[in-house]
Parts: sequence; structure tokens; C-alpha cells
Amino acid sequence: MNDFCRKYRLSIPVVLAPMGGDPSTPELVAAVCNAGGLGSLAAAYSSAERIQQDIAVVRKLTARPFAVNLFSPQAQLPLNGGVNAVADFLRPYHERLGLKAPELPQKPIEDFDEQLDAVCKANPPIVSFTFGLLPPKASDRLKAQGTYLMGTATTVEEARQLEQADVDAVIAQGSEAGAHRGTFAVPAEEALIGTMALIPQVVDALRIPVIASGGVMDGRGIVAALVLGASAVQMGTAFLACKEAGTSAVYREALTRGRGDATTLTRAFSGRMARGLNNEFIEKWNLSGLEHLPYPWQNAFTQPMRRAAASAKQSGLLSLWAGQGLGMLRETTALQLMTELGEEIKQAWSKLKDQLG
Amino acid sequence: MNDFCRKYRLSIPVVLAPMGGDPSTPELVAAVCNAGGLGSLAAAYSSAERIQQDIAVVRKLTARPFAVNLFSPQAQLPLNGGVNAVADFLRPYHERLGLKAPELPQKPIEDFDEQLDAVCKANPPIVSFTFGLLPPKASDRLKAQGTYLMGTATTVEEARQLEQADVDAVIAQGSEAGAHRGTFAVPAEEALIGTMALIPQVVDALRIPVIASGGVMDGRGIVAALVLGASAVQMGTAFLACKEAGTSAVYREALTRGRGDATTLTRAFSGRMARGLNNEFIEKWNLSGLEHLPYPWQNAFTQPMRRAAASAKQSGLLSLWAGQGLGMLRETTALQLMTELGEEIKQAWSKLKDQLG
Repeated sequence: MNDFCRKYRLSIPVVLAPMGGDPSTPELVAAVCNAGGLGSLAAAYSSAERIQQDIAVVRKLTARPFAVNLFSPQAQLPLNGGVNAVADFLRPYHERLGLKAPELPQKPIEDFDEQLDAVCKANPPIVSFTFGLLPPKASDRLKAQGTYLMGTATTVEEARQLEQADVDAVIAQGSEAGAHRGTFAVPAEEALIGTMALIPQVVDALRIPVIASGGVMDGRGIVAALVLGASAVQMGTAFLACKEAGTSAVYREALTRGRGDATTLTRAFSGRMARGLNNEFIEKWNLSGLEHLPYPWQNAFTQPMRRAAASAKQSGLLSLWAGQGLGMLRETTALQLMTELGEEIKQAWSKLKDQLG
Repeated sequence: MNDFCRKYRLSIPVVLAPMGGDPSTPELVAAVCNAGGLGSLAAAYSSAERIQQDIAVVRKLTARPFAVNLFSPQAQLPLNGGVNAVADFLRPYHERLGLKAPELPQKPIEDFDEQLDAVCKANPPIVSFTFGLLPPKASDRLKAQGTYLMGTATTVEEARQLEQADVDAVIAQGSEAGAHRGTFAVPAEEALIGTMALIPQVVDALRIPVIASGGVMDGRGIVAALVLGASAVQMGTAFLACKEAGTSAVYREALTRGRGDATTLTRAFSGRMARGLNNEFIEKWNLSGLEHLPYPWQNAFTQPMRRAAASAKQSGLLSLWAGQGLGMLRETTALQLMTELGEEIKQAWSKLKDQLG
């Protein structure tokens, strides 16, 4: 294998994408690790206490290396009005779900410094992050502990900035990827570069390992990404329907039903551009012509609705994040999926050997 | 190799993308063929007479198989007003270039049936097409002559429609691809699927060969596409700066300068969505808030400006089509590029062997 896979003893060059909200449970993280991949715990929406608990559970379930994922606080933007209009838009959905009137929380997201303290205390071998660079102090502190840092880029320029900020590896996120775009140096619309074009250009621009992300769902995609120069592949959507994932029942059903559908890009749920299945909320939001609140305010504002919608099985009001490889989704266990990926890598390799060997 | 490459004796699994306007000269087509690939002559903007001439030149320069590319007439939409507003928008550019006032031609595009007659008479081994299905009569006529038909799809559903319409192979165009989107079954915005996600899903859905297109610029990308299940790769941007290409000097300069820039999607030049470098015309068009004329009317209306801009070296008024792999562009000859691609395929294969073999 390559240096990155050797360093973290990956028998299958797969990094579980950190899927915030419900999907990335400690059980899923540990299952991917135990199957020879690298699990990533989504910590960006978690309190310091929750982060420590989750990491403790991961450690109970696996002795292998894992990653913890945070969001760069650089992505947090100040409010600049528009709250009442968005509240008016959300009100009927709150009524439909039996929730009290929408109210913007004063603290739209967990405190980054507290999260960082918790992570530093727990000292996971790897910290990955997205939405920007880490504050230099945070980066220095983690590096001083020997933490391996992986930042997320959606353009060659962002990848260069991350390398200059001394990360150890870059996750290059192609436009196929589900959920939030990691873009931080340009408007997200200008950073929708397909994985096939992005990976080789990032690989050529950097000296450090590149992890490919976006659109990969099986062993063919993993081998293709390795050929393009990636050291491993980060996969999220592929694991969404795994038993160990915390994906809600209604979300799972929507993914199965939506397999043949196109995904869409929206800022309606969080204020940041993200890819998922189209639904009632996105359509109505687009029709409203409203300006979203900046991230993380829009995210905090729609959170009670999304939580209640999951319980009430109303997929129309839920963020149904998914990548463009959705049609290749499998419902299985993480161990089984990883085993299949391992076999598919061998198959893809041997088919290629017949053609080129 | 695979069946497709064997059938057309491709020693390098590369199909030259048909690049309408100037780039795809008969010389470029023949050079790619002679180097072991499959050249495609762009015939969609050519008169019947020109098509016959161009095919004759190709045949003089190579004895190998080649393809001729047409646009599905299904893409031609009727005018529905808005001509005066677009004329007003174009007027200052016409003045700047010393052209007479913009005037919409009565015939915005060459007659498809005449083009088809010319193609049938010349009887090339392969006809590829984009922007829709061929009319059944055209398809039947070509098939009766033994012509191998390749249609262009941007979604799995479009690929299925093409297979049902009895094409012999499908070119699956990922969102990375430069120039016009081939989308015909949904709005083009809903069919921007990255190559990494599109190819395996199209391969799984079809029984016929799939040619991958979008974002591939070198041997790594070719091998990656083969791993995903493609039989060959169609490449356009990679050949734009070849000596044999008809790419104008000002277009070449813009490509070199724009290597690090993001590409953009626009309907400003032709009425159909296409990917290229951003420039003055696109920016001003976007600011105008105008509705474009339907294809092919917008295309015909902006053509005098684009032609004059190429001569006057005004890259701001030219369609600068390019794919997202632009950063990997090489200025060389087609033979040299093909030779390098062949070597890179071997290198990519041998690097992969070190990792997986």
C-alpha cells in the first residue's frame, strides 16, 4: 500500500466520512476501524462532554486508530438581519410538527475552544476538519500533541493553503460529495469540481497525502481514486444505510426511494451549501426567494424542525444529505460493506490487469 | 484491451471529443487516429458540402477508423420572442468589433437532413451524436449502412434511453466536461453528475460499451475511467492546445492564462448550457438579467461577434470552452500527447501494481 495506509494500518484504503447529526455513531466509526478502514467521529455538532463520551465509546469498541472531525470556526459568520422573515417561513412547519414557535438560539453552535479542549484531552491519533483552516493556536496545540491533521479542500488553491498551514494530509472533496461543501476560499458555487478532475490536480500541487472524496461508492471507485494519486478514499453516502449508522428510519427510506433521483445543492437547511435529495422544504424555500441566515444561524434555526421531522417521519422537512453515487447505495452492515469493498478492489484490479497487464 | 478498443484497433483507449467551431480540424482528427486513438470530426456546425470535404481530408490523412459527430435536431427549439432585447445587448459588442448591427439569421443552423445525407454518402465507420436521440429514420438509415452509433448521456436515464434507441455505445458526459452539456431528458442543471459517480452507474445500467468523458486529461484519468468500467475515454480539453487543433491564438492564450481559474457554466453564448472560462461577455450577460434565446437561435445570434472577436483577439467576447481538468493542459502535438498518454497509462498501471499487485 501507500504511506498513509501503512501508517494507520489500513488494509482497505477507506476513511469513513464524518457524518454529523445522527449517521456517524461511535459504533459505525469503530466498525469501520475494525474492518480495516479509518473511522471518523463527527464531533462538530457535539458538546465537549459528548465528544469525550463518544471517543470513550469508540475506544471501548476498537483498539485501532480513528479520526475526530471538527468544523473550522472560520466558517461561523455573524447574523445580519433576516431573522424574522426566516422565522415566518419556519412557523407553519413548526405548527405542523407541534413545535413551539421558531426561536433563534443565542448560541447557534457548540463552542469551538471547548470542543478543542475535549479533543485534546481525549487525544485521538487523527483530527480532520472542514469549512476552513484551523486557527493557528488550535493547529499548534494539536500538532504539539502529535495529532495527525487532515484538512478539507474543494479546490487546488484551498489544498495549497492547507498544506501551507502544515496539515499532514488533505481530503479533496469533489462536487459529487454528499452533505456540506467544505469550500472556504471562494463562493461554494465556484468550487464544484468533479472528483475526476480535482484529485490529480490536487495531487500534483501537494507533497502530502491526498484523500479523495466525492462519488465513490464501491471498489471500482476506490481503485480509480488510487490511480488518480489518492492515498485513500473518504466515503460517507456509502455508509448511510449501514446498520451501525444512526441514520433515522425516515432518512433511510428516502435514500432507498431516491436512488434514481438527482441530488440537489441547497443552503436552505444550514446556510452553507450542501448536497442532498430534493424535498418539500428545499422547494418551498427556493420559491420563497428568502435570503438564508449565514451559517451556523440557519442551521441552528432549522434544527428543531429537522429533529421533529425525523421523529414524525416527515422526510419533506428533513435534510436528506446524499452524494451523486446514491444509486449504488447498499443496505448492509459496515463489516459486510467493508468486506465487499475489499473484494471489489481485488476484482477491479484483476479486470484492469486483463486489459492492461 | 476491451471489445470497443479491439473493434476499432485503438492502442490507446482515447476518443478525441468533437470540438465544434474551430478546434477539431480534419488534421487533428487524423493525427489522433494515426497515433492509435479514435478521432471525431465535429460536423454539427458544417454544411453538407463542408462535411464531405472534411471527411475526404480525414481519409487522405489516415486509413484508420474515425467518427463524425452530429447534434440531435431534437435540441432545436422554436423562437419565442426576446430577439430585440438580445439584439440590444449585442449591439455595443458589434460596434466595438466593427460589425454591422446584430441580425438574427433565418436559418440558425445547418439543415440536419442535408448533413445526414452528406454523412451517409461519405459513410464513416462511426457516427456520434449529442443533445438528444437521433430521429428514428436517421438512426435506421445509418444502422442499415452498418454505421456504429454512439450517443451522449449525462444521466443514467438518458443512457438507458439511448440504449433502448439501439445505439452501439454511450458516451457518458460527467459534469467536469468542457463545452456543451449533452443533456436532453431533464434541465441541464439537474444533470451535473461528476464523472466518478456517473460512469459506474451508467456502466451498471447498460449492456453496451460506455465511453467516459469529463475531466480526464492524462493517463491517470484514462486508467481510472477504465477501472470504473468505461471502454475508452473521450477527451476534448486535453487536445485544445495541440498544434493540429484549429483553436485560435486568442483562445489558446486564454486557456494558458486561465489554467488556475475555475470554469463556469453558461447559456450566454448558445442558449444551451456549456462549460468554459468566465469572461466579459458572460459576466455582462449575467448582470443583464436577460433571457437567452433558445438554442440554436442564441448560438446563431452571437456567432458573428464570436468570429470577429477571435480575429480581433478579444478573448472577452469569445466562448472559451474548457473542462475542469484545464490545469493539466499541455501545449504539444497530438502525436506527442498521445504518446505521452500511452506512457502515462503504463506508469499509472505500474504504480497501481506496486500498491495492489
